[in-house]
Amino acid sequence: MSTKVAVIGTGLVGRAWAIVFARGGKEVELWDPNAAAVSHALEQIDALLPDLARFDLLNDTEPAAVRARIKPGEGFEGTVAGAIHVQESGPERVDVKREIFASLVELAEPKVVLASSTSGIPASAFTESLATRERCLVAHPINPPHIVPAVEMIPAPWTDTEVLERTTDLMRSVGQVPIRLNREVEGFVVNRLQGALLSEAFRLVEDGVCGVDDVDAAIADGLGLRWSFMGPFETIDLNSPAGVRGYCEMLGSLYFSLAKSQADPREWSEALVSQIETARRQTLGENQIVDRQQWRDRRLAQLVGLKRTFD
Amino acid sequence: MSTKVAVIGTGLVGRAWAIVFARGGKEVELWDPNAAAVSHALEQIDALLPDLARFDLLNDTEPAAVRARIKPGEGFEGTVAGAIHVQESGPERVDVKREIFASLVELAEPKVVLASSTSGIPASAFTESLATRERCLVAHPINPPHIVPAVEMIPAPWTDTEVLERTTDLMRSVGQVPIRLNREVEGFVVNRLQGALLSEAFRLVEDGVCGVDDVDAAIADGLGLRWSFMGPFETIDLNSPAGVRGYCEMLGSLYFSLAKSQADPREWSEALVSQIETARRQTLGENQIVDRQQWRDRRLAQLVGLKRTFD
Repeated sequence: MSTKVAVIGTGLVGRAWAIVFARGGKEVELWDPNAAAVSHALEQIDALLPDLARFDLLNDTEPAAVRARIKPGEGFEGTVAGAIHVQESGPERVDVKREIFASLVELAEPKVVLASSTSGIPASAFTESLATRERCLVAHPINPPHIVPAVEMIPAPWTDTEVLERTTDLMRSVGQVPIRLNREVEGFVVNRLQGALLSEAFRLVEDGVCGVDDVDAAIADGLGLRWSFMGPFETIDLNSPAGVRGYCEMLGSLYFSLAKSQADPREWSEALVSQIETARRQTLGENQIVDRQQWRDRRLAQLVGLKRTFD
Repeated sequence: MSTKVAVIGTGLVGRAWAIVFARGGKEVELWDPNAAAVSHALEQIDALLPDLARFDLLNDTEPAAVRARIKPGEGFEGTVAGAIHVQESGPERVDVKREIFASLVELAEPKVVLASSTSGIPASAFTESLATRERCLVAHPINPPHIVPAVEMIPAPWTDTEVLERTTDLMRSVGQVPIRLNREVEGFVVNRLQGALLSEAFRLVEDGVCGVDDVDAAIADGLGLRWSFMGPFETIDLNSPAGVRGYCEMLGSLYFSLAKSQADPREWSEALVSQIETARRQTLGENQIVDRQQWRDRRLAQLVGLKRTFD
């Protein structure tokens, strides 16, 4: 039985999906409208695999064996033919996604799930008029998806429950952690949570309560430590002898008062962005950003590797 | 020259401070109105030190050597006498703190910093009428302070800048990470950030967007991974080729739109809290909570140990 996954669009996200599916035991074929992008993706994958092996993120498979499962597809049609799952990671433009999905419903075998990696465009915006729109949904990974396991899955109003189930099973089978949304909502869940934290972070700096590096330390040397292995609900559930209920009874009124003081949505002004940029460039010079990104990805990989040794 | 730190109040927080100062090379004396609490704290410290050594969180000092630096003080007066810093971790009641600080300004040597560990009461609420109120401030640790390094420092309107500086230096010298607030603000910084995330987490569940475990996975298997070693500003600074400015230009309008949809402060209703409690008890049985708390502290210690090997 085929295990082929078609990866459509081979930028940063597409090539990470290739690694995810290949180390999960699937055969992966890549397609991109720009053929050079496929070669480039394969080179990048070659460069990434040894580091992933080092941090034990290839499921005990040799880099060469993972790599052998990834190859360029034969044209768009050949790439999609026989695939058990299609993962689209094209540009974040609704017109482009409309065009790609129109072709996908024509060419992919019936019942095959067509998933988009979009971080913000709901599937309803580019699948409404399609003949088999019930097999389309969003499966949005967190960057970089070959390291960070969360994938949020957002059905359009017409997505079959069974399609959501099958995609959930597939994601779990390759080691990702599916987050299931019941419906489309602006920003999905991950960016809504990130946005809530960012709003308050920007507010604290704008109001002169503390500096940019202080906010970052409050997370990176404080709250963020436990959030790397337990979410906000588990965190508060363990922070009271009477569990989450006890926590809410003890602190609900404080948090309601804080929420009221945070209820003034603000645009990020040019002056504020400049202030934050200046602070960041003092902490990290412009010419150090690329190195720091690589450092971040190594640390993420090391952390995910460590977590696999937890219980 | 004395290196003695007086720890006043020896509950969960006080005993953790004892470990922090002792592994940082200070002599620590403990006092609690309940003498049995001091003995209990010393037993707990004995139990905690081997685990900390295992995760390399004792600065290469043997547990016995750290332990030898911690002892019961001789009464309140004897404990405070000769201390270079006083760290108060009594009950979260303003009347109790008023009484303790009134005694502290009488008995502590002039210029010695008097710091409260309170998580929510501003120093202005219990130091206003004191003769040497300029040496009082809040130094609020994140639980458990012997593992999580962040400490937020909040001056009252009358706290000397030099007092804030000296406390910052002391905290750094023992390996904590000070977060400096410029003024008192409800919830300080850490709980304001946590509150922002919790508000959205509760909203998502209340609105039926996703389940409790989905929110937790979005953080623990998604955003929280990088937040364990970089804060929200560094995160977005590295998420655009043009740094934080490029990120804000690209996504500012999305986040403003999200902020507007998050600007309805909500009380946590009984029905919602029950729903969350039910979900949590399905994931973690009531009789597993204590084990899970110990698991959390071990994982936190392991993570902080790993972070020391970064760079």
